[in-house]
Amino acid sequence: MKKKEKMPLSGVIVLDMTSVLSGPFATSILGDLGAKIIKIEKPDGDDSRKFGPFINKKSCYFVSLNKGKKSIVLNLKNNKDKSIFIELLEKADVLIDNYKPGVLEKFGFSWKYLNKNYPKLIHSKISGFGETGPLNNAPAYDIIVQAIGGVMSITGSDKKNIARVGTSIGDITASLFCVIGVLSQLILRNRVNRGSKLDLSMLDCQVAILENAIARYSVEKKNPFPLGTDHPSITPFGSFDTLNEKIVIAIGNEKLFKNFCEAINDEEMLRMKIFNSNLNRNKNIKKLRIRIENILKKNKASYWLEKFREKGVPSAKINNISDLVENPQVKYRNMIIDYEDRFIKKLKLPGNPLKFNFSKDKKVAEPAPDLNENKKEILKLLRD
Amino acid sequence: MKKKEKMPLSGVIVLDMTSVLSGPFATSILGDLGAKIIKIEKPDGDDSRKFGPFINKKSCYFVSLNKGKKSIVLNLKNNKDKSIFIELLEKADVLIDNYKPGVLEKFGFSWKYLNKNYPKLIHSKISGFGETGPLNNAPAYDIIVQAIGGVMSITGSDKKNIARVGTSIGDITASLFCVIGVLSQLILRNRVNRGSKLDLSMLDCQVAILENAIARYSVEKKNPFPLGTDHPSITPFGSFDTLNEKIVIAIGNEKLFKNFCEAINDEEMLRMKIFNSNLNRNKNIKKLRIRIENILKKNKASYWLEKFREKGVPSAKINNISDLVENPQVKYRNMIIDYEDRFIKKLKLPGNPLKFNFSKDKKVAEPAPDLNENKKEILKLLRD
Repeated sequence: MKKKEKMPLSGVIVLDMTSVLSGPFATSILGDLGAKIIKIEKPDGDDSRKFGPFINKKSCYFVSLNKGKKSIVLNLKNNKDKSIFIELLEKADVLIDNYKPGVLEKFGFSWKYLNKNYPKLIHSKISGFGETGPLNNAPAYDIIVQAIGGVMSITGSDKKNIARVGTSIGDITASLFCVIGVLSQLILRNRVNRGSKLDLSMLDCQVAILENAIARYSVEKKNPFPLGTDHPSITPFGSFDTLNEKIVIAIGNEKLFKNFCEAINDEEMLRMKIFNSNLNRNKNIKKLRIRIENILKKNKASYWLEKFREKGVPSAKINNISDLVENPQVKYRNMIIDYEDRFIKKLKLPGNPLKFNFSKDKKVAEPAPDLNENKKEILKLLRD
Repeated sequence: MKKKEKMPLSGVIVLDMTSVLSGPFATSILGDLGAKIIKIEKPDGDDSRKFGPFINKKSCYFVSLNKGKKSIVLNLKNNKDKSIFIELLEKADVLIDNYKPGVLEKFGFSWKYLNKNYPKLIHSKISGFGETGPLNNAPAYDIIVQAIGGVMSITGSDKKNIARVGTSIGDITASLFCVIGVLSQLILRNRVNRGSKLDLSMLDCQVAILENAIARYSVEKKNPFPLGTDHPSITPFGSFDTLNEKIVIAIGNEKLFKNFCEAINDEEMLRMKIFNSNLNRNKNIKKLRIRIENILKKNKASYWLEKFREKGVPSAKINNISDLVENPQVKYRNMIIDYEDRFIKKLKLPGNPLKFNFSKDKKVAEPAPDLNENKKEILKLLRD
């Protein structure tokens, strides 16, 4: 068996009609799982080809999400291109798009048509709000979905200082659910020999990741609000000042609190009624914070992290991206990899978190395609 | 074909040895896809059974992550229970655990042993840092992984006011990648008739969702930092004050900026050099914010949202959880469902975002099990 064939999606062909983030990240993961990703671009290309930073005019944003894919430009308004698209549909296993609802239909490719003519084809669609419901046609960007989806109302320093999650979690969560959807559809197709359709909404995915916020609201009828770095029900569980920089500490149970008090040499806290249980610490969090920071501010972060490590107290430095890329664990796990192509000689990208016993980590990423770079190769595939 | 058999994971048996969040959310999604989830609990149960809020002493936190699962208590230190576990391994397709590395090995269930004795068994393991590397044994909680993983350094009002993402994205991202892993392993097993092992690290998953932060740092050698609700390279793309409350606006291209200026009746901005391109707006974001907010503060949020809707300008209210559960789109898509069991008469939970054409949304969740509730049923399964 060839090495490639050992991957779960070896032999699977994905037509990728997506742009920017939600779709491209999903197909990037499918590519890492062994699928062949044919990126069908409009004549001026995926919008993210215009997003900085650039190296020799090639977008590093685009590269980070499209490594290893093959690019062909097709203009569905043009009959010749449309016929190539139809030939591709005959070869493909999966079609993924993140157009606004109705766009593929306008070109004649409704699910009804696709399913009738390509009964084994799987179609997965990502949109801001889904294909149904009163908002189905509203425009969506990550921040819109973060705002409507509630996560923004619980992220930030306090009620007046809410924050957007610093990475585009509105898109990325949809990417991950899209991959889950496609893999499920492939599993079902193995059994029933028929394709299926997934109608995935970025907003639905935001609702799904709110942890227990909905259940809590449903019981308490009070809206959760932003708590800075603190946890709503576990204390201490957040960031604390030291002499030079903040660190995070996570005290998940009483045993850890005891170890923590020993590490900071303040065992008196264990005997103080206001701090002797998680519930009491949670109620008296301001007093607790002052007491802890008065001690932690006497030494540097590195001193305390070593003390906490010795006692098994979960704690960490708050890494900048520069710290992260140098982190020994991150390096050991090949989570920072090298990228190189004709234009870009040196770039770092995130690695693949799916560490299976049947696959080896790539330490160098495959090139991301230039616009229409693989047209010949793709047309040849159609003749095979 | 029975309705259940139409689901992708019909007939798949998952042994769920996970607790709290990362594992239970993963197996909850596998359950929604049709798998039978057998939750194997330690004698005092999943720790999250003790997390509030409670209704009639039943944890709503636990319920929100364990609906539809079956519970059996097994103490692997006890030989009788260990032999039941071994019988379950013979029946099972997938084993998932989120113990610290080494715990299953201590009980004799290393991957080598499992793979030798149950060659078709799939094992997926979630841990804080993975099973390899210098940090493999360090204790991890969500906030530790958010801090080490870099997302905390780019979330918050500004450099001095960083924030934890308000939902436990450190756990949840690992849950989603775990599901992707298990489904991939099932697909591979269909072809090669052998099980496999996944070693998933929460930290690795955080690195994977940083969007282009690593590529940007690699090019610019500058650390990204928190920007409140703003976007690093698109402007205006953030929250703005109105007369009564903040709203978010996302102007992704020049056409939208024109529509936006028309909607707020300030077409002069289009002709001002400091605002006439995204790059210039990005450079002059403070001036832009003052000018926009001076206008928006003259009317209420609802007035502006209607204006923006008319012009197709992406904009939204920043929903609290109470707004979210009443949102017409969220309701239309069945993303808030009802929960009921012997103890809990009324609770709202998030619905399933995977809307396939072969499945129907559940509007009522299946009960989450009491501790050891399904022991008889599970032992009967072993005799079948």
